Amino acid sequence: MTKVVLGIDIGGTNTKFALVEKGGNVVDVHKFHTHAELPFDTFLKTLHENIDPVLKDYGIKPEELEVGVGCPNYSSVQNKLINPPNLSWKNESMLEKISKGFKKVIIENDANAAALGEFRWGKAKGCHNFAAITVGTGIGSGVFIDGELLRGHHGLAGEAGHLVVESDGRICGCGGKGHFESYCSVTGIKKTFHEITGKDLTYREIVPLYKNGDLDALTAFEATADYFAIGISQVVTLLGVEKIILIGGGMVVGEPFVETIKSKIDHYIFPNLQNSFSLELSNLALEYGAVLGAAALVLEE
Amino acid sequence: MTKVVLGIDIGGTNTKFALVEKGGNVVDVHKFHTHAELPFDTFLKTLHENIDPVLKDYGIKPEELEVGVGCPNYSSVQNKLINPPNLSWKNESMLEKISKGFKKVIIENDANAAALGEFRWGKAKGCHNFAAITVGTGIGSGVFIDGELLRGHHGLAGEAGHLVVESDGRICGCGGKGHFESYCSVTGIKKTFHEITGKDLTYREIVPLYKNGDLDALTAFEATADYFAIGISQVVTLLGVEKIILIGGGMVVGEPFVETIKSKIDHYIFPNLQNSFSLELSNLALEYGAVLGAAALVLEE
Repeated sequence: MTKVVLGIDIGGTNTKFALVEKGGNVVDVHKFHTHAELPFDTFLKTLHENIDPVLKDYGIKPEELEVGVGCPNYSSVQNKLINPPNLSWKNESMLEKISKGFKKVIIENDANAAALGEFRWGKAKGCHNFAAITVGTGIGSGVFIDGELLRGHHGLAGEAGHLVVESDGRICGCGGKGHFESYCSVTGIKKTFHEITGKDLTYREIVPLYKNGDLDALTAFEATADYFAIGISQVVTLLGVEKIILIGGGMVVGEPFVETIKSKIDHYIFPNLQNSFSLELSNLALEYGAVLGAAALVLEE
Repeated sequence: MTKVVLGIDIGGTNTKFALVEKGGNVVDVHKFHTHAELPFDTFLKTLHENIDPVLKDYGIKPEELEVGVGCPNYSSVQNKLINPPNLSWKNESMLEKISKGFKKVIIENDANAAALGEFRWGKAKGCHNFAAITVGTGIGSGVFIDGELLRGHHGLAGEAGHLVVESDGRICGCGGKGHFESYCSVTGIKKTFHEITGKDLTYREIVPLYKNGDLDALTAFEATADYFAIGISQVVTLLGVEKIILIGGGMVVGEPFVETIKSKIDHYIFPNLQNSFSLELSNLALEYGAVLGAAALVLEE
């Protein structure tokens, strides 16, 4: 049997896990509510309640299984979780706790894992300088420089979600002012839609409105696209990457929205960089790209 | 005789050149007006009118001299000048033209050269992840990641001057909107002071006013510090550097201003990164640090 590994993508809202084999082939994929407001030990219990029956079905012994985990605000340099704005867990010894029972576990920042997935199997194949921006409950980014993952001195480099895009803007979940994430994450877009309409709709309700040309939804996504353009401009300006890949559940809004962002980038970016990069939607399953990247952590090429 | 090289730092307003020997010891240093509005060939003529007598004085033969040049918006990957906002020269074959008569010439982006100087002889000695931000007519930045200069796919990485710091802000010299440079360069600060007072003072006139507690000057530098805090936050957030070094003629405003910037960073930055880096004023001669870096391009350690 081909080697199979387990990828786990912990998100602020949902956690996804997938059995993945060589070449990035997804054997099986599932998701469950993270309930990030409950203690980490409760999450761990739920994780096993979901994973264990699946492993049993496939006749996979946990003690022989290698596991890659993507988690927001995890520093693989410090090997710990560092005050995640979208998870209530604080400085948990995650690696030790998740490792129990498995052959080997590697935890990486979720956006770094997503970038690795893109590098192995997605739009960044063969590309040595790129950033993958994950759009979900929060915004993360994973960056490759000269074919290597950029971790930074403290393992928290590439936190694009916390770039300032509005100097006098909204307070972010992290406490900072006017951050990219507070406007362009799923949470941020819902907030913008609420500010315009007074309505509390879910993202799954807002996206079809946008696609059907609802004026309020168009206004909300138009404003969002401006902030995306600013955030993406910063990433290109500092890192000199040749590609930006958008991924994550928030991007179900699709290609027309990406085109809207593109049309706004030239207002903000240094003209010398205008044609220096491409902005692309991931071609991995948008919701499952990050879990594929997590699997890549323990799956050789 | 110890090996001596020539460093040249081309700026939007002044060009500096220095004879530098092993260890970063400056033997002699001069400056002259760049007159960036005149053609490049005129600049080249002026350069030689200034350099040649100095070389003669020291008995240095140009054909035996190695020269390092720092120049804004120069891409050492593409080996050409790329539309500099603060120089009127367009895509000149600079390397070929400057090389004539010398043993060897290396041209690098001026901010990259400044960063190299800091890495060799300044505050970044032994530091593998840092950014040097040059504050002059424009703003540039040179970045080291894991001990290597970050050039980016096209050689224009680390253009911090063109980060967006105000979404609906001033139009930058490059045409982009609300850039760091349009607020925090010497040109930008003079503009802010003019907006407050209606007065057109030189930077050398404004700085003493600030130091003497003039209210208008304080207001101007207070607003400037906010934009510095935003720009620096972006650099740390994306690159995960452990040190930011401020250098260049604009920083003659000194340590109290750096303290003001520091006091504002926490409003903007991702809290996880608040204590992850230090912000420091270069300890190389502020006006001559970049020319020292240019010399470092052709001077082994």
